[in-house]
Amino acid sequence: MYPKLLVLVLTIFYSSFFLALASDPDPMQDFCIPNTRPSRYNIFSPCKNSKLVAPDDFIFPGVKSPGNFTDTGLAAVSVNPSIFPGLNTLGMSFVHADLNIGGINPPHFHPRATEIAYIVRGKVYSGFVDSNNRVFSKVIEQGEVMVFPKGLVHFMMNVGETPATIFGCFNSQNPGNMKIPAVIFGSGINDKLLEKAFGLSLKQIVVMRRKFFPKKLKR
Amino acid sequence: MYPKLLVLVLTIFYSSFFLALASDPDPMQDFCIPNTRPSRYNIFSPCKNSKLVAPDDFIFPGVKSPGNFTDTGLAAVSVNPSIFPGLNTLGMSFVHADLNIGGINPPHFHPRATEIAYIVRGKVYSGFVDSNNRVFSKVIEQGEVMVFPKGLVHFMMNVGETPATIFGCFNSQNPGNMKIPAVIFGSGINDKLLEKAFGLSLKQIVVMRRKFFPKKLKR
Amino acid sequence: MYPKLLVLVLTIFYSSFFLALASDPDPMQDFCIPNTRPSRYNIFSPCKNSKLVAPDDFIFPGVKSPGNFTDTGLAAVSVNPSIFPGLNTLGMSFVHADLNIGGINPPHFHPRATEIAYIVRGKVYSGFVDSNNRVFSKVIEQGEVMVFPKGLVHFMMNVGETPATIFGCFNSQNPGNMKIPAVIFGSGINDKLLEKAFGLSLKQIVVMRRKFFPKKLKR
Amino acid sequence: MYPKLLVLVLTIFYSSFFLALASDPDPMQDFCIPNTRPSRYNIFSPCKNSKLVAPDDFIFPGVKSPGNFTDTGLAAVSVNPSIFPGLNTLGMSFVHADLNIGGINPPHFHPRATEIAYIVRGKVYSGFVDSNNRVFSKVIEQGEVMVFPKGLVHFMMNVGETPATIFGCFNSQNPGNMKIPAVIFGSGINDKLLEKAFGLSLKQIVVMRRKFFPKKLKR
Amino acid sequence: MYPKLLVLVLTIFYSSFFLALASDPDPMQDFCIPNTRPSRYNIFSPCKNSKLVAPDDFIFPGVKSPGNFTDTGLAAVSVNPSIFPGLNTLGMSFVHADLNIGGINPPHFHPRATEIAYIVRGKVYSGFVDSNNRVFSKVIEQGEVMVFPKGLVHFMMNVGETPATIFGCFNSQNPGNMKIPAVIFGSGINDKLLEKAFGLSLKQIVVMRRKFFPKKLKR
Amino acid sequence: MYPKLLVLVLTIFYSSFFLALASDPDPMQDFCIPNTRPSRYNIFSPCKNSKLVAPDDFIFPGVKSPGNFTDTGLAAVSVNPSIFPGLNTLGMSFVHADLNIGGINPPHFHPRATEIAYIVRGKVYSGFVDSNNRVFSKVIEQGEVMVFPKGLVHFMMNVGETPATIFGCFNSQNPGNMKIPAVIFGSGINDKLLEKAFGLSLKQIVVMRRKFFPKKLKR
Repeated sequence: MYPKLLVLVLTIFYSSFFLALASDPDPMQDFCIPNTRPSRYNIFSPCKNSKLVAPDDFIFPGVKSPGNFTDTGLAAVSVNPSIFPGLNTLGMSFVHADLNIGGINPPHFHPRATEIAYIVRGKVYSGFVDSNNRVFSKVIEQGEVMVFPKGLVHFMMNVGETPATIFGCFNSQNPGNMKIPAVIFGSGINDKLLEKAFGLSLKQIVVMRRKFFPKKLKR
Repeated sequence: MYPKLLVLVLTIFYSSFFLALASDPDPMQDFCIPNTRPSRYNIFSPCKNSKLVAPDDFIFPGVKSPGNFTDTGLAAVSVNPSIFPGLNTLGMSFVHADLNIGGINPPHFHPRATEIAYIVRGKVYSGFVDSNNRVFSKVIEQGEVMVFPKGLVHFMMNVGETPATIFGCFNSQNPGNMKIPAVIFGSGINDKLLEKAFGLSLKQIVVMRRKFFPKKLKR
Repeated sequence: MYPKLLVLVLTIFYSSFFLALASDPDPMQDFCIPNTRPSRYNIFSPCKNSKLVAPDDFIFPGVKSPGNFTDTGLAAVSVNPSIFPGLNTLGMSFVHADLNIGGINPPHFHPRATEIAYIVRGKVYSGFVDSNNRVFSKVIEQGEVMVFPKGLVHFMMNVGETPATIFGCFNSQNPGNMKIPAVIFGSGINDKLLEKAFGLSLKQIVVMRRKFFPKKLKR
Repeated sequence: MYPKLLVLVLTIFYSSFFLALASDPDPMQDFCIPNTRPSRYNIFSPCKNSKLVAPDDFIFPGVKSPGNFTDTGLAAVSVNPSIFPGLNTLGMSFVHADLNIGGINPPHFHPRATEIAYIVRGKVYSGFVDSNNRVFSKVIEQGEVMVFPKGLVHFMMNVGETPATIFGCFNSQNPGNMKIPAVIFGSGINDKLLEKAFGLSLKQIVVMRRKFFPKKLKR
Repeated sequence: MYPKLLVLVLTIFYSSFFLALASDPDPMQDFCIPNTRPSRYNIFSPCKNSKLVAPDDFIFPGVKSPGNFTDTGLAAVSVNPSIFPGLNTLGMSFVHADLNIGGINPPHFHPRATEIAYIVRGKVYSGFVDSNNRVFSKVIEQGEVMVFPKGLVHFMMNVGETPATIFGCFNSQNPGNMKIPAVIFGSGINDKLLEKAFGLSLKQIVVMRRKFFPKKLKR
Repeated sequence: MYPKLLVLVLTIFYSSFFLALASDPDPMQDFCIPNTRPSRYNIFSPCKNSKLVAPDDFIFPGVKSPGNFTDTGLAAVSVNPSIFPGLNTLGMSFVHADLNIGGINPPHFHPRATEIAYIVRGKVYSGFVDSNNRVFSKVIEQGEVMVFPKGLVHFMMNVGETPATIFGCFNSQNPGNMKIPAVIFGSGINDKLLEKAFGLSLKQIVVMRRKFFPKKLKR
């Protein structure tokens, strides 16, 4: 009975462990597959015994179907070490995103990575804003690549007549994603402060909040 | 006549030079005071000859008066190597901010630094939002310190009955500052995308834009 | 006449300059487009005046045609800041590679980056070798992703019945590429040492060398 | 009985754990509050479950009273993750120091950080020495800021007629502090070596040692 | 009975632990001696209690005898934290190598470090190949030093009339070592790919493989 | 006449340039030999055209004779990119030191590097002090290696009956060297502060200062 508890507890441990400790700047070994399924013989090791590592640990089978689109027409899968263990400690991760016709990826930023976005198919309006509040945007198409510098707010909108697919790479294994509408209106920042910051009335703030808060509650 | 042109051109060169090349991770020498006033004998050196470096290069005289407050009641001086050369290559900079009674520092983030904010005087509502859209905020007072993790959106509002003063340190010599209201509504992101992202009508977007764009033009 | 010479000389300067000085670990500003076309007003600046930076600086138009295949059936375009200036200082670059039917990308490694390889179309045998001389390889197909850890020898072979296309991202703006066959037999390492290292006869070494040296001369 | 032992042991574990593993160069997640109070459900996690993290984890209540002054007239509180958990993994920490009238902060250096020192009140002689043995020093006053480059020996002396208060920031969560008098004369370096290094007689060395060793023993 | 199992398991844990987690870029504390012999009082701590750390933890007793030479005449001892705990987290390690008369260190590279090689005695042909497939090589003698840039293939051959000794330093605590002959012919890369890459016949590949695979099996 | 001036000025430029800009954390190219002898065709390039780079750029000919011993019996040659260009951007450098019988290397520290010290010949008392003022020291002999953690004060004394030779490696191309006696007593720190810090009389301070200041003037 006691050992069972121990294993449970360890599982919780590892899920946050490898996210917290790996160091983006430079790997210290060839690779480090996190040992998410602790065994009797190796229960504590954050890196799996390399003899048990298999080719499949370094291969991500891909996104077979786009999944459900959000309200804004986005279906994105963020691929980091929690679902693709081979990435652990290597300082990279990626995202596979589908955009419905007219769909958008709302203004957001990754606090810990630059992104290279490759248009697999489709036609998207794509851009970012620099720290002088200047927008750099353009419609790009299949085969074209756009780079979003580290920490800058960026966005996309499918302006073509077919769904679009984007493959985006990050130079961090855990880039983070701050979605501006939800960060601002769905987090619970003081009303008065928001009124003053955006020049909105309290009533307008309340309307905005209703849009972004309920979603969060349903999760 | 020709040499004069050369000097002019070089001055332009350096102003962007030291921002672009210094490396935050680790200094390579004791210090590197950028040579912003090229002389006949040392015109190209990005680091001033260390014999010409004086104690004053490492001392910032401070902000004697708060300066003019913005519309939101903020008067902030960002101190980086462009006005305090001693900071160059050392991976740090700071900000001195005054908040009028009721004034706010609108939601913003620094893409390249964590911030440690020390309340010199006054009483402020202060907080940040993490990547799960959760707000961490509280009213803090003179002598208290709050930390804003790298790249996360944060804000302040003076809720006391006197002006407030804040001293904030960054672990980058050029942390950057993305002010959300201006980034989103003052940069020129496509209207349709903003409508969809925030669930606002085109009319509302236009109103918002008017608030943040004109200011930019006046600058 | 004199100014003309100066401009010529400066062009040479910049081409090697931005490769040498940019720092992968962390950018110090939003972005830094290298000024490869020096103007009268800003001839020395390694970062282009940000007012002259345009959206196109951050967009790579893509590889419209595969180009000529090498003897081994590979047509690869390495995209780094020398042809896509927007990448400069951001710590990332990428490669677009086509593999003819049966074509290979010979064993090679990137001394300065991990690679994430996304199979755009086709079916390839893909793998790498770790520092215990163990191979991790598998046949992967369209939509699948393989990661090659930093500095490890890897390779690909098109085993499908159509040409294959691969999009690979790197977490360095200048990852480097050491092609093992050419490094070993096409560089001019002492014969005796190669004989002893590979257990080959001098005659065999000479044959190998003929395969890899002539190519180099033709370049 | 057995579980009790386990908890004890774990407490020891964490106290050294978060100091050893966090990586200054770049955080890998929004934040990582070390779990110093292990619970039954999450005993091993070095990062506290983010749902249990509260605003107070990111706020340091400040130093309400200067504390006892040392023999040299210094009362300093070093604030790092061991007493302010919110700093963990963010690459920053700070010190709050009071200097009695005539008090000094003896020559010392931080092996792992640059320091930005803000004079909250008072008037201090403040300086550092570079690796050419040149001193950069000056009397600075309330509101002024001095920067001490990483790893260089620095010092302060209150030369005003009131106590002084200094707020110092570091760009490492564990900058370290090597106090020269104690390092040299209070550590037990071989007498002969000290005689030769400083040109002191054995008798003088013994006197010096008596000043710095006893203090250590009392601790 | 139960506690015994626990200790066993922990030992396995630590052996892979300190290799995986230490961060080359910058230490976070003075030092961190890994606790490979867990005690009752400190079983989990990855850093040994600093009170138990002794001078010997920072001293490597040296290589008293060259050991057995390999087939190619090399006897090398790689000294990293697994045998010299004091190196842990400090970002350095070293190798002590003896080369028999005529012996070679075959072409190899270190994916995670630059190497500085000091010739303690003897006369060796020494060189490396850059990413343009150009060799930089020369015969160097006692007291001379050669640098092998990070990730580039290098090699040595004793061309003197006495055994040679080399002391090599690395700027990583775990530089890795990819020995080209074994990586290519001793790892199990697909035959067809090797044939195409090196222009060898299947028969020749098989002969090569026999040379490098059996050795591996005997280990 | 004018071009001549230009060349002179450029020479000054480069000598400080490569020290200031190279980035220790990670090289961005195979190597970067600084172009200290500007030519007509490549006058500005901080990295020499790689076609002009020769094997000798990566080889340091060694220290043929110990040079003159200082008063304390030390003859050390610090080898960094200013005298061994091949080290530039690679994040390493070294020192070759001879210690006369009874000679010492006074307490000093390197603010930017860990040191690995290999005893080439002789017998030395060697040690360092940690930030708890604890000394770690021992007599070590030929073939033994001691590691001095980054930024910690260390020292050596030849306790054998023959001269000793040490080869020390650093993980920075410009580690810096702060010699405590000269930093404290030879730099010009305020007398009063020194009196209070070391518990010495003004008279004693003056005596100490005389020992370390004059030397500096003669240089």
